[in-house]
Amino acid sequence: MNIVRALKCRECGQEYEIQPTHVCEFCFGPLEVVYDYEKLEGFFTRELIESRPQTMWRYKELLPINGEPTVGVQNGFTPLVRAKNLEKALGVSELYIKNDSVCYPTLSFKDRVVSVALSKAVEFGFKTVACASTGNLAGSVAANAAAAGLESYVFIPHDLEQGKVLGAGIFGTKIIGITGEYDDVNRLCSEVAGKYGWAFVNVNVRPFYAEGSKSLGYEMMEQLGWKAPKHVVVPMASGSLCTKVAKSINEFIKLGLVEDNGTAIYGAQATGCSPIAKSVKEGSDLIHPVRAKTIAKSLAIGNPADGYYANRVIRETGGWAEDVSDEEVVAAMRLLAETEGIFAETAGGVTLGCARKMIESGKLPRDESIVLCITGNGLKTQEAVVDAIDKPRIISASLKEFDILAEADGVK
Amino acid sequence: MNIVRALKCRECGQEYEIQPTHVCEFCFGPLEVVYDYEKLEGFFTRELIESRPQTMWRYKELLPINGEPTVGVQNGFTPLVRAKNLEKALGVSELYIKNDSVCYPTLSFKDRVVSVALSKAVEFGFKTVACASTGNLAGSVAANAAAAGLESYVFIPHDLEQGKVLGAGIFGTKIIGITGEYDDVNRLCSEVAGKYGWAFVNVNVRPFYAEGSKSLGYEMMEQLGWKAPKHVVVPMASGSLCTKVAKSINEFIKLGLVEDNGTAIYGAQATGCSPIAKSVKEGSDLIHPVRAKTIAKSLAIGNPADGYYANRVIRETGGWAEDVSDEEVVAAMRLLAETEGIFAETAGGVTLGCARKMIESGKLPRDESIVLCITGNGLKTQEAVVDAIDKPRIISASLKEFDILAEADGVK
Repeated sequence: MNIVRALKCRECGQEYEIQPTHVCEFCFGPLEVVYDYEKLEGFFTRELIESRPQTMWRYKELLPINGEPTVGVQNGFTPLVRAKNLEKALGVSELYIKNDSVCYPTLSFKDRVVSVALSKAVEFGFKTVACASTGNLAGSVAANAAAAGLESYVFIPHDLEQGKVLGAGIFGTKIIGITGEYDDVNRLCSEVAGKYGWAFVNVNVRPFYAEGSKSLGYEMMEQLGWKAPKHVVVPMASGSLCTKVAKSINEFIKLGLVEDNGTAIYGAQATGCSPIAKSVKEGSDLIHPVRAKTIAKSLAIGNPADGYYANRVIRETGGWAEDVSDEEVVAAMRLLAETEGIFAETAGGVTLGCARKMIESGKLPRDESIVLCITGNGLKTQEAVVDAIDKPRIISASLKEFDILAEADGVK
Repeated sequence: MNIVRALKCRECGQEYEIQPTHVCEFCFGPLEVVYDYEKLEGFFTRELIESRPQTMWRYKELLPINGEPTVGVQNGFTPLVRAKNLEKALGVSELYIKNDSVCYPTLSFKDRVVSVALSKAVEFGFKTVACASTGNLAGSVAANAAAAGLESYVFIPHDLEQGKVLGAGIFGTKIIGITGEYDDVNRLCSEVAGKYGWAFVNVNVRPFYAEGSKSLGYEMMEQLGWKAPKHVVVPMASGSLCTKVAKSINEFIKLGLVEDNGTAIYGAQATGCSPIAKSVKEGSDLIHPVRAKTIAKSLAIGNPADGYYANRVIRETGGWAEDVSDEEVVAAMRLLAETEGIFAETAGGVTLGCARKMIESGKLPRDESIVLCITGNGLKTQEAVVDAIDKPRIISASLKEFDILAEADGVK
């Protein structure tokens, strides 16, 4: 059942037929996919969803493709982990990790948006797909395009982590490194998208692409036993994920799949690139672009496309935003690994670090359910922690030498 | 329902009560878990299994723990991918990838064996767990132990890849690097296990640990639509996985869950460490230990504990074994990534490289179903491919500069 109605301008409300475009011709506002939810009444039930394979496509009626997906059919459906050890460490009573550090296939939540964007690109008849990326998106576009037999070009800042560069290049994509920041990459990509007939997942196909993030929210609610949490902490780069988690919750409420639990959305940024967090803290809805300087490169978007909308969602839901230093990012990455066995990338350190700060400041209550969105894998950002972790102690294969170490460790 | 009967010596057949031990007191043969399968009759059905969560524990009756698992509850159940692009590249008609490069939580099939070993260790009352590892096992023990609140020690060769070392150290485990090869590490660990009261997952808890590998086989058959494939290609380090895939198939046949399809098992090694492949090729069952020299460090076991049994399984099922050079490993890693969007570690390159060779030599037929077991993630062995992959082309954020590149690429 296809319930997609149109593309609609978020500012002036103008509607457009479904097509690869992302900006309103009248007011230059961003376009969003809108649906006729009432068509799903009595059909789109918990039972129907539960009967389907455990992928993000079990919610396919709420994703803007026609019929069955053709790219990324097995993507998504990551574990929601009850974080008992971390609860103790933070002094809270009900904490969950939505663990997209193991998202299929390229270990970040970008696999969700990319499978929608590329399925839609195939529908539209594109043969070449592309993106502007801080790293995870590049890997996901490259891998999913390879599996789908599509050509791909990925554009990244020239100074990304090795794991991000290799984690895209290995798939035989064409990688272009741009001397400059992500915002420069993004600007160039808008020009390239205008000139070449390619599907840029986060430019001309962006309205469809962005909808893919909702699947993270759907899964979270289903995995909580068809409940919306009281609080969700989301890392912010463009700010899009904040808005889409909120949209997913509103849709499930509208469809009667969960009750309204008054969910508040919280945004997390690195201090070295925190334009959205700053605006929330200042009680303003103006986003002042910044030059990014942080180890959390996947979040280093100084001029966030959805900053205004993320700000609004956070303020309207009664949430808050926070930012953390690079040292706090590393400390939080270690804390998450040591308590829950989850090796997240720097963005995960940002999310947990900010959550910790908001718990300590009282912005996040200690006695209500909290979900942390962990969106990428630490094996792609090894540079950030490799010097902070104890190196192996080296001995020869001698029991005597080991005994000395063990004694030093206080082993009995 | 607990159907575990005993530990049984693979050589003399002597049975032992369930306990943390791995060697026969009489003949020094290795011990294996044996079951009373008849107890499952009429109970352990396809329907029962399908009704359970998608984790490796949906087959819990065939794994040697009492009751519910306490460690790694969400582990396993990785995608089986129909590899259409790779079929074309290799000229075969029905090829699947069992994709444990995304196994939960640490991205290798070791999460399967570790969750059984640590669940059993908790049952036995151990507080500290340990292992001898070529890397993946270290990461899995460290992560799963952290999440379970267990202390851990991991012993590795001193010269492993950064992703393997960091991918264990991040979890707060104690890492000991041993100057020498894996076989030296392993020898030391036998001594340490004898002296300290720890659960060494692949020493004193090995019989339980090894059973975890069967879950890969169970999933593969369920995902094929309750069918055993005609051919399975398995990477070999100790050789254990070969034997356990065979055991999983035999068990499903015995339980009436699949029909006997005459499945043949094929072993894959790197030429620089191929003692088992060599023995198979020579038609011998004698394994001559070697000094390992290969980029496939996760398979670099020169004196493989289960080599004899792997050899036997391969020969008895009508399979074969092959080995590939380091260059072929890298080429196969690239081929897998470029065709299927799967970034496997070096061991995956070994598996695909050997499969390719066996297809070309006629040892693997082109017109029957083949499953390749891909067991670990390429982000942990970046050193192996980083110099083989094209670096990004660097330009400034200028459409003009991009146009020149695009023209050079032949873009129209």
